[in-house]
Amino acid sequence: MIIVMEHQADKRHIDRVIEEVRRLGYTPHPIFGTDRTVVACVGDERGKDRIQTLDGLPGVEAVVPILKPFKLAGREAKPEKTVIDVGGVKIGGKEIVVMAGPCSVENRQQVLDTAEAVKAAGAKILRGGAFKPRTSPYDFQGMEEEGLKLLAEAREKTGLKIITELMDAHHLELVERYADIIQIGARNSQNFFLLKAVGKSAKPVMLKRGMSTTIREFLMSAEYILAQGNYNVILCERGIRTFETYTRNTLDLNAVPVVQKLSHLPIFVDPSHGTGRWDIVAPMSKAALAAGADGLIIEVHTKPGEAVSDGAQSLKPSKFRELMDDLRALAVPLGREVAPAEAEA
Amino acid sequence: MIIVMEHQADKRHIDRVIEEVRRLGYTPHPIFGTDRTVVACVGDERGKDRIQTLDGLPGVEAVVPILKPFKLAGREAKPEKTVIDVGGVKIGGKEIVVMAGPCSVENRQQVLDTAEAVKAAGAKILRGGAFKPRTSPYDFQGMEEEGLKLLAEAREKTGLKIITELMDAHHLELVERYADIIQIGARNSQNFFLLKAVGKSAKPVMLKRGMSTTIREFLMSAEYILAQGNYNVILCERGIRTFETYTRNTLDLNAVPVVQKLSHLPIFVDPSHGTGRWDIVAPMSKAALAAGADGLIIEVHTKPGEAVSDGAQSLKPSKFRELMDDLRALAVPLGREVAPAEAEA
Amino acid sequence: MIIVMEHQADKRHIDRVIEEVRRLGYTPHPIFGTDRTVVACVGDERGKDRIQTLDGLPGVEAVVPILKPFKLAGREAKPEKTVIDVGGVKIGGKEIVVMAGPCSVENRQQVLDTAEAVKAAGAKILRGGAFKPRTSPYDFQGMEEEGLKLLAEAREKTGLKIITELMDAHHLELVERYADIIQIGARNSQNFFLLKAVGKSAKPVMLKRGMSTTIREFLMSAEYILAQGNYNVILCERGIRTFETYTRNTLDLNAVPVVQKLSHLPIFVDPSHGTGRWDIVAPMSKAALAAGADGLIIEVHTKPGEAVSDGAQSLKPSKFRELMDDLRALAVPLGREVAPAEAEA
Amino acid sequence: MIIVMEHQADKRHIDRVIEEVRRLGYTPHPIFGTDRTVVACVGDERGKDRIQTLDGLPGVEAVVPILKPFKLAGREAKPEKTVIDVGGVKIGGKEIVVMAGPCSVENRQQVLDTAEAVKAAGAKILRGGAFKPRTSPYDFQGMEEEGLKLLAEAREKTGLKIITELMDAHHLELVERYADIIQIGARNSQNFFLLKAVGKSAKPVMLKRGMSTTIREFLMSAEYILAQGNYNVILCERGIRTFETYTRNTLDLNAVPVVQKLSHLPIFVDPSHGTGRWDIVAPMSKAALAAGADGLIIEVHTKPGEAVSDGAQSLKPSKFRELMDDLRALAVPLGREVAPAEAEA
Repeated sequence: MIIVMEHQADKRHIDRVIEEVRRLGYTPHPIFGTDRTVVACVGDERGKDRIQTLDGLPGVEAVVPILKPFKLAGREAKPEKTVIDVGGVKIGGKEIVVMAGPCSVENRQQVLDTAEAVKAAGAKILRGGAFKPRTSPYDFQGMEEEGLKLLAEAREKTGLKIITELMDAHHLELVERYADIIQIGARNSQNFFLLKAVGKSAKPVMLKRGMSTTIREFLMSAEYILAQGNYNVILCERGIRTFETYTRNTLDLNAVPVVQKLSHLPIFVDPSHGTGRWDIVAPMSKAALAAGADGLIIEVHTKPGEAVSDGAQSLKPSKFRELMDDLRALAVPLGREVAPAEAEA
Repeated sequence: MIIVMEHQADKRHIDRVIEEVRRLGYTPHPIFGTDRTVVACVGDERGKDRIQTLDGLPGVEAVVPILKPFKLAGREAKPEKTVIDVGGVKIGGKEIVVMAGPCSVENRQQVLDTAEAVKAAGAKILRGGAFKPRTSPYDFQGMEEEGLKLLAEAREKTGLKIITELMDAHHLELVERYADIIQIGARNSQNFFLLKAVGKSAKPVMLKRGMSTTIREFLMSAEYILAQGNYNVILCERGIRTFETYTRNTLDLNAVPVVQKLSHLPIFVDPSHGTGRWDIVAPMSKAALAAGADGLIIEVHTKPGEAVSDGAQSLKPSKFRELMDDLRALAVPLGREVAPAEAEA
Repeated sequence: MIIVMEHQADKRHIDRVIEEVRRLGYTPHPIFGTDRTVVACVGDERGKDRIQTLDGLPGVEAVVPILKPFKLAGREAKPEKTVIDVGGVKIGGKEIVVMAGPCSVENRQQVLDTAEAVKAAGAKILRGGAFKPRTSPYDFQGMEEEGLKLLAEAREKTGLKIITELMDAHHLELVERYADIIQIGARNSQNFFLLKAVGKSAKPVMLKRGMSTTIREFLMSAEYILAQGNYNVILCERGIRTFETYTRNTLDLNAVPVVQKLSHLPIFVDPSHGTGRWDIVAPMSKAALAAGADGLIIEVHTKPGEAVSDGAQSLKPSKFRELMDDLRALAVPLGREVAPAEAEA
Repeated sequence: MIIVMEHQADKRHIDRVIEEVRRLGYTPHPIFGTDRTVVACVGDERGKDRIQTLDGLPGVEAVVPILKPFKLAGREAKPEKTVIDVGGVKIGGKEIVVMAGPCSVENRQQVLDTAEAVKAAGAKILRGGAFKPRTSPYDFQGMEEEGLKLLAEAREKTGLKIITELMDAHHLELVERYADIIQIGARNSQNFFLLKAVGKSAKPVMLKRGMSTTIREFLMSAEYILAQGNYNVILCERGIRTFETYTRNTLDLNAVPVVQKLSHLPIFVDPSHGTGRWDIVAPMSKAALAAGADGLIIEVHTKPGEAVSDGAQSLKPSKFRELMDDLRALAVPLGREVAPAEAEA
């Protein structure tokens, strides 16, 4: 932390700041400039929150944070990339892993058909929501345990792993029983109670970035999970809120190389929610790969026009298969790889 | 909903859209323009989500929502203003109600001193967090039940009502036992599971607007609570995320008259979190009143420099008292009133 | 500037930074912390841009700017408030000055009628665009000199001063010939060539904040004008771009007390463009006053439904008169005043 | 346009709207729904601004624009992609064209060295600013004509074409004399006077997206240039303003496929300004290609640490050469190509 004093701060104000810094357990380093004084504070990186409050002291113009506040999620703590093993599927390694499936689990046929289709195209993990966060209380809220069972049946039939969203700690045990990866949605990215709960789970967690969460805060949310002992966290950029209205969200691919630089955790991209438009999912998926993403999570629906949620952003299986072929070719010059497709029937 | 077809959409695409609209239970009204065709869909306002998915059909350029999606929270359902009675304190009436107190409950002395001070200045409700949502897992997380007990003690001593934040449904019973009003924080404004839980509570709820929540979504979150039978919802604008960095958030006072127009629920303003700077809390409090707010929630700390959280945005009791005096005078030409201060000792 | 070194930066990287800082004419103050080193740079506040580029040196994690970059616009240079005299109308003093009139000058009748109406209600300055910045090239672009003449005629008839927008330095002489105050619009708030041009004018300038301009950048744009010798600059907050779509822009009233704190220049508010909705212009005008604004600029149109531009945000004369009455009453407890209305005919 | 009436709008209000729509030259199509009435307006797509003002009529809830407002820039007017020939360099074709060079022209050596280096790596066009838009009036403002001459000398020596920014119409003739492509910067993207001026130029124009310009407005700015007869417009995404602070701007790659869908004009990406960090320029350049960009404009400086502007986002020649090699390989699976590098000396 650097405390910047006002232009003509009194000596007594400066002394007071120095004394308070010391009282809080940090070592103050005053620097007397031509124009004003700044006080650098040296000490333990965590818990610096109290220094921020010195902002309120007379003569203080600003308190400027300097250092990265995350510890376990940062590259400094662990320089090498984290690779997470989900029943044999390696996440964060050379292979780009694709998760695909419907937004919501709607019925048995839909889940099984979609699972077969995405598996054939090269996906490794099936996505599908059984608990759905919906803006309106009058919209479909998910099939709950019935939906989880259908996902498990699809896993048995296809060998795909499954990822599904947990909306409340109350359902943790239930979701753990079925899911291979627990997803925390964007709206819960700062639901700290829920983050702590999955931090105690033995299952890997995919944490989505909140709609107005900075990259720094995103990593702090991951830190909540890691701090409880669960190191298997996959980050996922899924679009942020901006003034642009043509796309539902603004998929922020800048977050991919930034996260790769700051953190050792794998970073995925969700181009379906990130753009809200199926017609740009393909180019943005390719862009995500080129930006360095470790994987993608894509909405696929056998009949988008009949989807109970997010049909506008879902790909049909045939489009998804084409996209997977393109990604496979693109991975080569990037030094990555995408799993092969099965021969078409 | 209005479905806009592409410039030269085929007749067969238009027919398909008309058929799908009918299949979804709405009455299609095609309008054949000089340049393109639009299909207006008439029917039940709720659950129109499925029409949105027609976006995916060939020949469709856009699906444009037209109507307000909230039902119970809207003025159309209930034109007259809602007044909530919290043990005799009327919220949403002529009187502007001020809630004040520390960000976090830290210790007995702090809570009791602050309670006495804000009461003397004219506040009616004491705020104080016992469960704290913090960006970092290494920051102070709140005194939990111990803190709730201190708030209750302050209530006994001063007669103030108390408001405190609930972060997870798991603690609902505990918080209900102590609080007069349950607060749902900005980070949980779309934690739908939690909204449903407090929707079943007998206690009034103050719902804060999320940092990137539109006004429409904010009212939909209120709708979640109302739809469960709890009609005692107080809305609270507390700043949104923008590109501006001088203030911690951008307090969006436009939301006050907009909410007043769309909804019958009382709307409060939190200038402390909304700006993050104690030095502009006073002018923004006045501005909130002038914009039509039904009340304010303000952070007051006897020693801001020693606060464990948000000291930079807390007022000292003396500044708070001055502000209350100013608000009292300002209320007169606005046709409102603010409770009198007690004579200074 | 503070240069923050990486966690385990080499001594040779630190030495290189120190040497570069010295080469750029600043005095380096290295601070060796437990965890990393920071180098504070002391020297002339302006032109620190070159230090920012040290960001590119090996071992450097971040370069953090500390001080306010504006000089003439800042309170440090001139603590007392600037009052601008526009032919007897004092801007920035105790009186809150209201500018009002149509978005665009459309015809003689409209201008004269509106001028009479706003004058009768207590406005001191007539606004009206003769050159119009329009998003579409197919929209009405303004009456140009013909419009300026109509404004001048209205001035003669009513005694109101006039403010009108200058869109290009090419028209400066023409606009200077007619206007009492030259307005620089939001889209030109960083058109530095234009700012320099009006910096050499003898006429006062109203500078609107750009839609995505931070308060700091806004003051830097004012600095461009002041640096050329024109000290008569009125700032105007007129709404910023955010994710919220219910209002056309998000009127950022926080900017009012922040500007008052940082700068001695008068600050106005434009609630018409700032919200884009006539139905919330009145509450937001009151809120602007309460936040401390020195004046307002409001769109008034005798027939909003027939306006060639921005009819949706224009008040009718009768609503404007009511608003002025409300503002007059509100000014009293704020220690300000608003000019009296004329008796109604 | 669709006009949505209020819930219980009077028949006389509806009739008034219908009459006004007709008066404005459009054909009204009222649709009487179960819950409320909407009036669709059919007619000429341009100049619909006046219908927007019906918003002000009693009983009207909202006026919703439906159709794309641009005409010449849109795919509907011209389905096939525009290819611009800049002295033999084809922009918008199969080849991905890279423009590179320093932010500002600083001196002869710098320009010539950088030109040689970027040419050797495969760039086709040299960028360099002679007129610089700077936030502070105290920062370096550019070498002006002296700088243009140095760029021209570099063109003679290397055969590269040159692109440079025009900040004011006043300098148009001067810049035209030297530049092969005229650049309009982000801060001038809605400087409509300047857009009209370059619309009459015979030189191709690169139009940068403004920091808070929607894609729709961006295309409307291009429309300004096209409407004057200059069809050689290259669009350039360069980052938008959001709440994220880690990157200087948020490079919005979503704009690439969206623009490709809506418009026939070539779309470039500027990852240097778009991110403000040289260390993520390479991954974001690759991502831009994969998203479908027609080219890139990248800042390269022989000594970033000594650059007078934007050193923090400039690549060294060696890094640029590596990036060009990577882009060349990446272009193959995308069905594009990048010019070969020259053999290293």
